[in-house]
Amino acid sequence: MHRRDLLKLGAAAIATGIRPAITSTAAPSSSIEQWGLFEITLPGPSTGNPFKDVNLTARFTLEHRTISITGFYDGDGTYRIRFMPDAPGLWTYETASSASQLAGRTGTFTCIPPTTPGNRGPVITAHEFHFQYANGTPYFPFGTTTYAYLFTSDENARNSLAGMRQARFNKTRVCVLPKPLGPGENQMLPFPRSGTTNDLTRFNPAYFQQIEKRLLDLQRSDIEADLILFHPYDAWGYKSMGQEADDFYLRYVIARFSAFRNVWWAIANEYDLVKSKTMSDWDRFFRITAAEDTYSHLRSIHHSGPIYDNSKPWVTHASLQRYDFENTAERRLAWRKPIIYDEMQYEGDIERRWGNLSAEEMTRRFWLAAVYGAYASHGEVFISETGEASWSDAGRLRGDSGPRIAFLRALVEKITTTGLKVPDVAYYLNAGMPGQLYLYYFDYHRPARYDFPLPTTANFSAALIDPWNMTSTPLPGTFSGKSRIALPNKPYQAILFQKVSDNHGKHAEAAAPEVLD
Amino acid sequence: MHRRDLLKLGAAAIATGIRPAITSTAAPSSSIEQWGLFEITLPGPSTGNPFKDVNLTARFTLEHRTISITGFYDGDGTYRIRFMPDAPGLWTYETASSASQLAGRTGTFTCIPPTTPGNRGPVITAHEFHFQYANGTPYFPFGTTTYAYLFTSDENARNSLAGMRQARFNKTRVCVLPKPLGPGENQMLPFPRSGTTNDLTRFNPAYFQQIEKRLLDLQRSDIEADLILFHPYDAWGYKSMGQEADDFYLRYVIARFSAFRNVWWAIANEYDLVKSKTMSDWDRFFRITAAEDTYSHLRSIHHSGPIYDNSKPWVTHASLQRYDFENTAERRLAWRKPIIYDEMQYEGDIERRWGNLSAEEMTRRFWLAAVYGAYASHGEVFISETGEASWSDAGRLRGDSGPRIAFLRALVEKITTTGLKVPDVAYYLNAGMPGQLYLYYFDYHRPARYDFPLPTTANFSAALIDPWNMTSTPLPGTFSGKSRIALPNKPYQAILFQKVSDNHGKHAEAAAPEVLD
Repeated sequence: MHRRDLLKLGAAAIATGIRPAITSTAAPSSSIEQWGLFEITLPGPSTGNPFKDVNLTARFTLEHRTISITGFYDGDGTYRIRFMPDAPGLWTYETASSASQLAGRTGTFTCIPPTTPGNRGPVITAHEFHFQYANGTPYFPFGTTTYAYLFTSDENARNSLAGMRQARFNKTRVCVLPKPLGPGENQMLPFPRSGTTNDLTRFNPAYFQQIEKRLLDLQRSDIEADLILFHPYDAWGYKSMGQEADDFYLRYVIARFSAFRNVWWAIANEYDLVKSKTMSDWDRFFRITAAEDTYSHLRSIHHSGPIYDNSKPWVTHASLQRYDFENTAERRLAWRKPIIYDEMQYEGDIERRWGNLSAEEMTRRFWLAAVYGAYASHGEVFISETGEASWSDAGRLRGDSGPRIAFLRALVEKITTTGLKVPDVAYYLNAGMPGQLYLYYFDYHRPARYDFPLPTTANFSAALIDPWNMTSTPLPGTFSGKSRIALPNKPYQAILFQKVSDNHGKHAEAAAPEVLD
Repeated sequence: MHRRDLLKLGAAAIATGIRPAITSTAAPSSSIEQWGLFEITLPGPSTGNPFKDVNLTARFTLEHRTISITGFYDGDGTYRIRFMPDAPGLWTYETASSASQLAGRTGTFTCIPPTTPGNRGPVITAHEFHFQYANGTPYFPFGTTTYAYLFTSDENARNSLAGMRQARFNKTRVCVLPKPLGPGENQMLPFPRSGTTNDLTRFNPAYFQQIEKRLLDLQRSDIEADLILFHPYDAWGYKSMGQEADDFYLRYVIARFSAFRNVWWAIANEYDLVKSKTMSDWDRFFRITAAEDTYSHLRSIHHSGPIYDNSKPWVTHASLQRYDFENTAERRLAWRKPIIYDEMQYEGDIERRWGNLSAEEMTRRFWLAAVYGAYASHGEVFISETGEASWSDAGRLRGDSGPRIAFLRALVEKITTTGLKVPDVAYYLNAGMPGQLYLYYFDYHRPARYDFPLPTTANFSAALIDPWNMTSTPLPGTFSGKSRIALPNKPYQAILFQKVSDNHGKHAEAAAPEVLD
């Protein structure tokens, strides 16, 4: 990571590590915004194996609170400790280390409220089945998949980021360990490698420094990085390194990345396809992550076949490779956590059946996820005759669902701050907020009209929404109680009711119950 | 039933019941074609309650075989015995009865091979999961739903029949007991009724005579009548008549209708919504039907929620109200019988969610049923502002899926005589005949190309099929082994491979196994 990047982030003050630490609260370099990244850089021993031999921690204190943070070796005799303060005020710190050169360093800095646009803190769960930023701003994941984004070429990464910004994706699923890229790619690796032999006792700091640069690029674009820690797409033996190396890698990643506010932890992609690991390995990774990550970033695990038991306490939300949305309510009851359909097959045209959905079908799946009270992620793979990288590894965005997903995201962000709630019983799919908001999605149904069972206690505006053509057409008048509305003679339409006023003349009676058949 | 109708059928000779019976094999009136309807009409007692008091049977003998048939009272002192001979030759008969006037009548007739176009005998199951006519002609059900067809107005019935002929439906689901029709309809009833009191010990012969006329209209149009014996759509108490009346009605219906070759028995529609009956009632109805129907017409039962145990021995095929086609293979293994998705929701535009599919979605479901190795039925309901009957009760056909279903039917009839078989493992949905025929349906997938895993032992022609536009476009050349074919950039396409020649130069090796992911 370049010092410049940290400054660009508008949040970082680099402590020099040379005593006396800068302590003046007035000095620009000693103030850092809340949820920014404060980094202590220290020179230290470079002999032996500093990754293994040296331990380094710092205790950060604000008033009555003290937080212990683990540092890491970044090569070339440089050690770093990164900290993301979660509250304004005057913080002090003091290091401890097995190396005397690194121990006992102290300093202070002032944490100020966020000033960088888009800094709302890390994303946390909220309202049981939803999310928000730490500052209380609503966050609804409308993500995508760019597995190789963190380690692909600069050009691919640039294209990938441009596509994410264009389609307004606010999360992306990215692998920390490398996937094999095209044959022409000069691929950096996280561990030193000689021939076919990995040295799993050391890291290649350059690999991680590049990841950090890209994490910041995502952060500047308001995109959460759903960091996939383990995966089965391996050409070097990283999927079966053994417990010691697995845990060593995991702790290093947490020490390096957890102070980035836009980090989420995805323990694995398709965990069940990593045949060399057992359930107790996955559980242990969760426990280590929960213990080592001071900030409690979101934690999930993605599967291929059997779904991990998402009721386990260390799981913050479910990350599913499914598109059987009709089982969402049952899952919500079982897990009591937010659900993201992170992989619902991909838009594209490749031969594999997971990679050739039409844009219309991808759009439909996003809408289904929404009215089932869940969230979804996009993915895309098109055949490349030229060897061009596919979007889901990182590259250009070529499909047509992106704008429709952005349209849905804008709609959801406009109509709710707490997320869409699903009624226990509904004749047609809808979600919203009882008495306030109803978003219906008719899927393959196309009734010529429908008697919407609105409450009589309020008056509602109505708008007819075409998810594919991205139009929202207000209907004249207001609606209250059982309201017959004509619908267009085509499937995949939606209708939105929003409360505009109380209906004081009415008793608080429920609308007539619908006949279910 | 009018004598004229029986003659029109080109199959019936009416035995006068007056001794001596006509026995000359040369006389036109004493010959009847195989699977035609031979009827003995006898005058008998009209006092008391002839429906209950008089029993009447006849034994029909051909060479070493004797078949016992139950007659019925048709009102006005007239008794009838109906018989569908299943083999050519000289048949003799002799009646027996509790009424001496009806007993001991004898006669003969000659059964000749079928002469009426379309007379192929009743439909039976074949090849484990499929159907054929008794004469061995393949029969693949592409049916519809016209519940009230048998008892609606002549005009509705005429419109209904015209629609069925136009869309080439070859089966329709029809209720024997009435459903309430529109308020303007002067509705005939099967039992005498005084005020709100039914006399469940007698029948209204005119009601059944009308049904028989319409059964013959269906028969002349090559349409199988899937007769629904019980149903929950009741305004008169017929759904809860009690065991005695239920069985009395069932036996009467079997005596009247079973000699019609185009009859199937659907024990119920939505059996589980008839709350007054228990599983043992449904089982008993099956047992009575199996015992009383000499001809073993097809027997099924249709459900709303829980599926009846179709592995019971009296069930000939499954009649499902479902559209979860992905469970077809599992059901086939459990039941080892043909499966018809008789209700997969309806094309239309009404408010209820079962009645407003687009024609495209109905077409898609027919194709899914086909490539899952099953069969399907159509249904349609559109809003009528004028009180016009909806198609699924009987009326005009208004939707757009009909021609597409006819297109699929013609395709299936052209490519197979034994039905489409489903491979145990397939990457994309396909059905056909291993080594001979592969019909792929890509549903919402749209790969730009696919390496079809054809066997190397034969050469295949290929045609690209558009199920909605009803086009079949032959691809140039022939294909053998792994064959890459470009596909159009849209979903819901199909491709058909048909063997054109052996590939003698090749060993009988299998194509490379597909990678499954």
